[in-house]
Amino acid sequence: MRVGILGGGQLGRMLALAGHPLGYSFVVLTPGEGSPASSVAETLVAGYDDPAALAELAERVDVVTYEFENVPVAAVEILREKNVPVHPNPRALDVASDRLNEKSLFTELGIPTVPYQAVDDAASMEKAVRFIGLPAVLKTRRFGYDGKGQRVLRRGADVEGAFTGLGAVPQILEGFVDFRRELSILSVRGQDGEIGFYPLVENRHEGGILRLTRAPAADVTPAQQAKAEGYARALLEHLDYVGVLALELFDDGVELLANEIAPRVHNSGHWTIEGAETSQFANHLRAITGAALGSCAPRGVSAMVNLIGEAPRAQSILRVPGAHLHLYGKSPRPGRKIGHVTVTAPDPGVLDARLERL
Amino acid sequence: MRVGILGGGQLGRMLALAGHPLGYSFVVLTPGEGSPASSVAETLVAGYDDPAALAELAERVDVVTYEFENVPVAAVEILREKNVPVHPNPRALDVASDRLNEKSLFTELGIPTVPYQAVDDAASMEKAVRFIGLPAVLKTRRFGYDGKGQRVLRRGADVEGAFTGLGAVPQILEGFVDFRRELSILSVRGQDGEIGFYPLVENRHEGGILRLTRAPAADVTPAQQAKAEGYARALLEHLDYVGVLALELFDDGVELLANEIAPRVHNSGHWTIEGAETSQFANHLRAITGAALGSCAPRGVSAMVNLIGEAPRAQSILRVPGAHLHLYGKSPRPGRKIGHVTVTAPDPGVLDARLERL
Repeated sequence: MRVGILGGGQLGRMLALAGHPLGYSFVVLTPGEGSPASSVAETLVAGYDDPAALAELAERVDVVTYEFENVPVAAVEILREKNVPVHPNPRALDVASDRLNEKSLFTELGIPTVPYQAVDDAASMEKAVRFIGLPAVLKTRRFGYDGKGQRVLRRGADVEGAFTGLGAVPQILEGFVDFRRELSILSVRGQDGEIGFYPLVENRHEGGILRLTRAPAADVTPAQQAKAEGYARALLEHLDYVGVLALELFDDGVELLANEIAPRVHNSGHWTIEGAETSQFANHLRAITGAALGSCAPRGVSAMVNLIGEAPRAQSILRVPGAHLHLYGKSPRPGRKIGHVTVTAPDPGVLDARLERL
Repeated sequence: MRVGILGGGQLGRMLALAGHPLGYSFVVLTPGEGSPASSVAETLVAGYDDPAALAELAERVDVVTYEFENVPVAAVEILREKNVPVHPNPRALDVASDRLNEKSLFTELGIPTVPYQAVDDAASMEKAVRFIGLPAVLKTRRFGYDGKGQRVLRRGADVEGAFTGLGAVPQILEGFVDFRRELSILSVRGQDGEIGFYPLVENRHEGGILRLTRAPAADVTPAQQAKAEGYARALLEHLDYVGVLALELFDDGVELLANEIAPRVHNSGHWTIEGAETSQFANHLRAITGAALGSCAPRGVSAMVNLIGEAPRAQSILRVPGAHLHLYGKSPRPGRKIGHVTVTAPDPGVLDARLERL
């Protein structure tokens, strides 16, 4: 089976690394030369909206998936015209690439989320602030990632100019959640409707970028896990979704509030390579190729630490027991994710000691 | 770091799959187009004795390793002239590619092995049979693998014509061991002399080809593990070896008798991908690149089943809990290893049930 991937970043790279052992081969479409995926997959260097490149991709593969949510709708249409299935269902792109669509779907499916209001101009901004109150978070509806395209409004003075400050594009104002912690759940749905859930994990961000994931999250009650699984299941089934779906949740101490979804393999699931029976990458591929899903059960406990900006001291990382280094073949640049380390351990005490050493 | 590999088969493929996450890139030199490694590594298609190709390989990489023991000496010499380090130390090739050298080294290092005698002609054949007795096993000294290049001599009549039957090339006659089971131990030595040992595993062959490895082997006493580690350590240190070394042993119920070594990653170590803290492939690369070694501790228990000849029913394999499929990108052919499955489990009882299902 030949798999096409829109995007040649680290997610595409790790998909290919997980997929070769399953007997799959890969073609990535990416605008950049020397992408992280290109050392483990055939590469078409072209824009995502290049009709000739998309047609060639369609010729060369049996199924297409993507590693980011801002895939142009036109790209998906060209692939479908060529009768190449695209998974996950591109309806998920409509939802995940627009924060208002996302929040609206949560509401429609009865999934608790933060209060929100659409902001399209100064008038709707004023109305939204009145409805939500302050503090609140103003976000662009589209193209936000890693904390970009958003600002916190704490007092009246912050409101003025905020809409134009974010480019006067369509925005959304969300209630500020003083959450205890951020959790996420990865789920996967096969072509036959079979669903698997990984355990809830806890994510810590710094400067809007994920720094650390602990898997499974500590102190999760069976009721919380069941709730998160119910929300993910509702989304998967509503979207007739095939592949891995990530759902980020705020735990405010009382409830789990849905924050956003990612219709793809996700940074908060990298721990699954060593920390789960089947990695998110293998399960995503198994889903989109119609194969049976693998177990999502954790193997011991683990923590994933992103390597951001600087070249890591690989030698000292490799000396930490249970540490597994994953570099993406990218040159270091401030704020850039150039790799991650997953530390596995038999229990949380040992894990903490190993993280301390790291 | 750029790593060159002589050979583009499944071992080269799995080395590259393990090495990309460590930030390494790969160039394989292989005589065949479309080799298993070529989908995950840059490829030079040329003979192992092609001076221009070897010179180009030397230009493009920082270190060279190999995935088979019959590497031409001339190839190693060309690489060394270009100042590219070759690991493991090619002295190991001299030993491992010739059964007489191998047995002589075991004897020299005090490692118990079967009785053996060199056979170079009819006269030495007669003398060898007198010394060893029957039954005995006649083997070519070089180029034997997967049970090829050997025959069992049970009675006097089998002796006649046996030497010419195996091509009248240099041979060795070995005492026939009625062993209880075949074990092997994988060890790894870093550039700084650090050594790691995987647990002893049990191997079952059919028709001379490895079918099943159980890891760790059942009922191994600490004394047996210590003995096997001592033998491996003696070999590693004597050869000033860097990389993974496999040592096959017969367990006759009383002693461990060394059978042969492989100076490379080995089929009986494929279980380490999911069944150990650090895979043999990652540890081999860590060793040859001068990085710190990773833990060789097992994770639960596991079994590796080779997929030989026919295309496997991937779907039914993927449905077995704990099963991990590894295909090599080869077309099926009778007797050909086209992949393997590793089944992991928390304990031997669960493992047996899962193997039964497989």
